[in-house]
Amino acid sequence: MISKKELPACPVTTTLSLINSKWKVFILQKLTERPWRHNELKKSIAGISQKVLTDSLRSLETDGLVRRKVFNEKPPHVEYSLTKLGEEFKSILNELYNFGEYYKEHMPEETT
Amino acid sequence: MISKKELPACPVTTTLSLINSKWKVFILQKLTERPWRHNELKKSIAGISQKVLTDSLRSLETDGLVRRKVFNEKPPHVEYSLTKLGEEFKSILNELYNFGEYYKEHMPEETT
Repeated sequence: MISKKELPACPVTTTLSLINSKWKVFILQKLTERPWRHNELKKSIAGISQKVLTDSLRSLETDGLVRRKVFNEKPPHVEYSLTKLGEEFKSILNELYNFGEYYKEHMPEETT
Repeated sequence: MISKKELPACPVTTTLSLINSKWKVFILQKLTERPWRHNELKKSIAGISQKVLTDSLRSLETDGLVRRKVFNEKPPHVEYSLTKLGEEFKSILNELYNFGEYYKEHMPEETT
């Protein structure tokens, strides 16, 4: 976690430092749908390793984007959801989605 | 460059595969201002290496986001600018910027 005075001067750099891997973006994308359990996330994000998922969730939690809630049931379980701050990330996801769609329609013709 | 049929199913993944490093985002950010020469970009993007800049520009050009124009003057020079497709990236940059600003105002309080 970086302190307020250590934040980069450029807000774009701040955002990129918070989502410094595609995996964090994929996790946030899943969490826009609903709260998820750790194992559910692991199964639904193709290719993510246990370690990367755990580290990414911890980092997103420390940075205030993701909330970790323990349910003391039997057996106990843990759910991850977006904080109010994390919810704000949706606008970025929407634009990432829109650009991907636009790119598909307008990408350069193959020359081979 | 990936062909249309190789594009990921999820548009978000497509976009992330196009901007797979923060450096590409910083380059695109500069190019939203005006066309830039290679050396200008090198000087204005703190910390970018010659190789990363060259490779990133080449990749962005191949993917159709950046145009490379050679001016046959004396001495000849090269300028990089956004293509129409690259211009579409501005909406993402805006949201990355907005989120960074919002984060600064609402980031978690330091506990130490």
